[in-house]
Amino acid sequence: MHAHVVLTSGDLSPDSLRGQSAVVIDVFRASTTIVTALANGCRLVIPVLTAEAARGRANDFPRGEVLLGGERGGEPIAGFHLGNSPLEYTPERVRDRIVIFTTTNGTQALAAASMAAATAVGGLVNLEAVAAWVMAEGRDLTLVCSGESGTLSLEDTVCAGLLLEALTDRGARLELSDAARACRLVAVDYRHQLGRLLTDSAWARELVRRGRGPDLAPCLALSVYPDVPVLEHGVVTRSAGEQPR
Amino acid sequence: MHAHVVLTSGDLSPDSLRGQSAVVIDVFRASTTIVTALANGCRLVIPVLTAEAARGRANDFPRGEVLLGGERGGEPIAGFHLGNSPLEYTPERVRDRIVIFTTTNGTQALAAASMAAATAVGGLVNLEAVAAWVMAEGRDLTLVCSGESGTLSLEDTVCAGLLLEALTDRGARLELSDAARACRLVAVDYRHQLGRLLTDSAWARELVRRGRGPDLAPCLALSVYPDVPVLEHGVVTRSAGEQPR
Repeated sequence: MHAHVVLTSGDLSPDSLRGQSAVVIDVFRASTTIVTALANGCRLVIPVLTAEAARGRANDFPRGEVLLGGERGGEPIAGFHLGNSPLEYTPERVRDRIVIFTTTNGTQALAAASMAAATAVGGLVNLEAVAAWVMAEGRDLTLVCSGESGTLSLEDTVCAGLLLEALTDRGARLELSDAARACRLVAVDYRHQLGRLLTDSAWARELVRRGRGPDLAPCLALSVYPDVPVLEHGVVTRSAGEQPR
Repeated sequence: MHAHVVLTSGDLSPDSLRGQSAVVIDVFRASTTIVTALANGCRLVIPVLTAEAARGRANDFPRGEVLLGGERGGEPIAGFHLGNSPLEYTPERVRDRIVIFTTTNGTQALAAASMAAATAVGGLVNLEAVAAWVMAEGRDLTLVCSGESGTLSLEDTVCAGLLLEALTDRGARLELSDAARACRLVAVDYRHQLGRLLTDSAWARELVRRGRGPDLAPCLALSVYPDVPVLEHGVVTRSAGEQPR
């Protein structure tokens, strides 16, 4: 299995994903929030690129069935029901609901990755489940990290490296691209001390500065959800292999 | 000193370099070739973006004084005197000459980095000299890796990480960006076994496949030259602090 990592989604040429499995990674926070929402009973997440598109799309559904969620520049969007904190996506708020979701980097990365043969959403919180999904799909793999303004995010790099390690542990024979190899080496250093990302990651420090520190620890909880969100026909649902709990 | 690494020159926003020191890194092979040429007595290297521009620029100089060098897609350019192998840039060929130079990635990276307050060319071959230059300049630092088609090159990533380590060894107090931190972690793994890059780097494997294997070992020789090529007013010469030998 050939494995590559795109370190910042702006570098993705969508055509390169044809016939591959893609996993979109945005640890702080979009990936974690989407996984959490589906794990907590949300029916589906509809990623859209703009706040305007989110409001427009909401009109397709009965009021009360749909919630608007997301952020711009890390801040909640005026008039939206939910921000981009995984802590907000509780069973009480999201069970049986549809979430229309837009974030600065995460939903752009999802749109870019939709050209793949199969596209999932991965974070540290569902790492082992995603590894199982990649093995079951069996295709060559591209991990699409959201990154930040044209540069890599340390937490996404570490997540990508740990996912590659999990695949090796499951017996995958990986041919690593240079970027994939670099991610594995970075992950080795953080494997047993993910908490260091709270201070080492520039975006983590920025979120703490803005009072969003409580969001971060839940994003670093390793393999706490069995859910693999998959993107098909523009909507994100649980992988067919998984049953709602 | 704030230190950042741009992992592929396509991600560089030149405005971000204002007021900074920049070091352009293309280990296989443009950086190494430029350092080698100047170390072997070449008067100056004029980087240009296209083969056409190189031929045009040659008309500004007396015939016999000027050589055309470079590559496209890793291959020599028809009608040029020299390719992009450091082995070609011997004292016999380049002493007291001017080299007009164009490569697929390296000279693009140099052009992009020319907005910095001071711009140097770095490779493994002049790592310690570049570290000394960065310390003497004293500004915030951006390392601009050429990379390959929108993704990182392992050898440039390792070179960037080792350069950051050399700065720390010289007493620099670095505030590392996420990308800079990742480079340091990747470099740790290669520090004492640079030869592994011959097999781990995708571009090294490709150059070997094309019969360019002999070019690679000279690119991995650590700190063998005291020369720091600096870009000023569109030409690359030895740093003012260094005397021709």
